[in-house]
Amino acid sequence: MKVTVVGLGPGAGADLTGRARRAIEGADLIVGYTAYTDLIRDEFPDKEMLSTGMKKEVDRCRMAVRAAAEEGRNVAVVCSGDPGVYGMAGLIYEVSREFAPVEIEVVPGITAACGGAAVLGAPLTHDFAVISLSDLLTPWEKIEKRLECAAEADFVICLYNPRSRGRADYLERACDIIMRSRPAGTVCGYVKNIGRSGETYRILSLGELRGCTDVDMFTTVYIGNSQTAVINGNMVTPRGYMQRGE
Amino acid sequence: MKVTVVGLGPGAGADLTGRARRAIEGADLIVGYTAYTDLIRDEFPDKEMLSTGMKKEVDRCRMAVRAAAEEGRNVAVVCSGDPGVYGMAGLIYEVSREFAPVEIEVVPGITAACGGAAVLGAPLTHDFAVISLSDLLTPWEKIEKRLECAAEADFVICLYNPRSRGRADYLERACDIIMRSRPAGTVCGYVKNIGRSGETYRILSLGELRGCTDVDMFTTVYIGNSQTAVINGNMVTPRGYMQRGE
Repeated sequence: MKVTVVGLGPGAGADLTGRARRAIEGADLIVGYTAYTDLIRDEFPDKEMLSTGMKKEVDRCRMAVRAAAEEGRNVAVVCSGDPGVYGMAGLIYEVSREFAPVEIEVVPGITAACGGAAVLGAPLTHDFAVISLSDLLTPWEKIEKRLECAAEADFVICLYNPRSRGRADYLERACDIIMRSRPAGTVCGYVKNIGRSGETYRILSLGELRGCTDVDMFTTVYIGNSQTAVINGNMVTPRGYMQRGE
Repeated sequence: MKVTVVGLGPGAGADLTGRARRAIEGADLIVGYTAYTDLIRDEFPDKEMLSTGMKKEVDRCRMAVRAAAEEGRNVAVVCSGDPGVYGMAGLIYEVSREFAPVEIEVVPGITAACGGAAVLGAPLTHDFAVISLSDLLTPWEKIEKRLECAAEADFVICLYNPRSRGRADYLERACDIIMRSRPAGTVCGYVKNIGRSGETYRILSLGELRGCTDVDMFTTVYIGNSQTAVINGNMVTPRGYMQRGE
């Protein structure tokens, strides 16, 4: 009948919107990556849930669309953060072409960029670029080009997937590229486990970030623009109101 | 006592997170731009609300921090979308330096980029850049540079404040800059009044967007990357799972 792609926000629970909650309540089958269905299992104990492991994205989306198109079910596909930012929303549309027509709705959630920014202070209050350092689906050269251009244009940069086992030095390489046009003293920050137990953050310089080994795959990284400052221990990018002279 | 900067999401109501709702309920004074306090007045009828008009951002933030620092109140500053994306979060930190120390918390909300993307389909499923076309606080040359670099690096581009009375031709100028590195057939979309009454959207080409007069200050605009496509009437940027050959 219908597939609703639902964003849970960074840690589900308190960051869930009313609309996301109603979409889950109204579904008769929940599909998601195991770590995400686990996030909501306690809150929706009576729901039938189908989960698959990492890197099974296409299978999982086909399973969801098939259940809607062939079994007439109301399916909610749950994603951490926002399903439209590196989430399953795009893939659900792509996969849906293989089946009889089904209605698709996307319910937005708080993406990690916004959730983590709120922990650090206000790093994204001016123009920003969001870049994933994962080269599983994107050639590294394209990622490099984006880092280079974003740094050159003085965007605040938010990095998803900054590190994983197979990509131990990608964050270092990204910092090197950015340092071609930004000083090593640029204010940076990162947040681990946003909205979940074990949430921690740190504010540091771009030079320090380059050598930082604490950043893992559950971390979101922020590189400030030329105006980003530390105010009382928070990372803040001014929008320009005060600078206008009020 | 405390200032909580709260994101209402695109249209408050259903897009409000549980955490945002509790922050408003727990505050004894709500401060915001008139259009935003109006969004929540029906839902929180007993709350004292202080609102000011457009372009009074610094006054409004000082009012909020003063009430917390000097009168010991629990103040919620409400913003449409996410307070950390062109919202009041940064300014609250800046202004707080003028007063005795107060606790500041930012409660994220669904920003227009994510809210509008969900209406169009999944335009932001790959790396993207968010750029405001308002030159009230940013020199136009800096905006041009960001448009140029974002287009060159094949980011999906999301434009906030694409047009206002004083800037009738800015969207046209932005499209001209982007068309230096993107074909006129690039898939674009826009959404008006996201999450509010009168929500409408349109999917069109970059060439059509250039001449489009329907875009106003309540519109969020999306310019696809080289892979963005139209699938069953939705704007979708593939993440690359299908292209990997599954």
